[in-house]
Amino acid sequence: MPTTIIGALVNGRPNYATIAHVGIMDHESISLSMAKIHYTNAGIKAHGTFSVNIPSTDLVEKTDYCGLVSGRDTDKSTLFQNFYGRLKTAPMIEECPANMECKLVRTVDLPKHDVFFGEIVTTYCDNTLMKDNVIEIGKVNPILFVMNDRSYWKLGEKLADAWKIGKQLKHK
Amino acid sequence: MPTTIIGALVNGRPNYATIAHVGIMDHESISLSMAKIHYTNAGIKAHGTFSVNIPSTDLVEKTDYCGLVSGRDTDKSTLFQNFYGRLKTAPMIEECPANMECKLVRTVDLPKHDVFFGEIVTTYCDNTLMKDNVIEIGKVNPILFVMNDRSYWKLGEKLADAWKIGKQLKHK
Repeated sequence: MPTTIIGALVNGRPNYATIAHVGIMDHESISLSMAKIHYTNAGIKAHGTFSVNIPSTDLVEKTDYCGLVSGRDTDKSTLFQNFYGRLKTAPMIEECPANMECKLVRTVDLPKHDVFFGEIVTTYCDNTLMKDNVIEIGKVNPILFVMNDRSYWKLGEKLADAWKIGKQLKHK
Repeated sequence: MPTTIIGALVNGRPNYATIAHVGIMDHESISLSMAKIHYTNAGIKAHGTFSVNIPSTDLVEKTDYCGLVSGRDTDKSTLFQNFYGRLKTAPMIEECPANMECKLVRTVDLPKHDVFFGEIVTTYCDNTLMKDNVIEIGKVNPILFVMNDRSYWKLGEKLADAWKIGKQLKHK
């Protein structure tokens, strides 16, 4: 899964949590599963907003650090260059090549996790990473997370076009 | 996101749909977001079970094909070697290196999508892909899906250990 850094305003300060358990719900919304022990959850509930920031591999140390320390004990507000978008209460990370600010639209209450459904309000991306109005994932260089053995991986080469490579089986 | 092939028993026959919008909800359950137009949804609702199969890159053609044709018009039950596990109604694909059979525990009804929450009942994996009781993702060779430009990608190299590489920032 792609590793993301979730931004929220907690007790008046930007806070960031490293989360790979982000899913796609439909073409407008995403899910974000956060263990209830996280400090960030209160900020998401208070403001009804959060951000999803996609770090590149060169940010792997800071990304991992955000998952190692809690905002309860450590001020993470000066770790990155913060910026805000239309929602005003979803801090985003300038150093990340892509950012999404999201409005909380639903919360699914699981025993140990809050699953937040967020509607993507705006996506921010460095122009140099775009081609034909689409983000080029190869240039983003995302950090892929593997839970099994707790490791980060790089993206490899493009393999094929989707909704295309399988067409040749249609007439077999 | 990792590309998966979802298996369900629809009208008495194994059917398979290619879905990348699978998320992790907590340590026991996953989410599966399926547009309501899919033929597979009825089978998941009828039996309360489904499977998540992880294809390797060598299965890219058949994987893409499963996303190109609907079970409504095309019989996909003979495309793979099917097998069943404890749940009996969640067909799985022998050719995929890893399979999970899931019990439906919750459905979130979005306007155009059903989001199925599944509890993982059993995971099946080829022994040769395991080390210290953990699946080695590098050996699984998953097909990563990029929605932006509708493409499949390979996994690259391991970058770092999670919950570790960031430790050096702790005392800066």
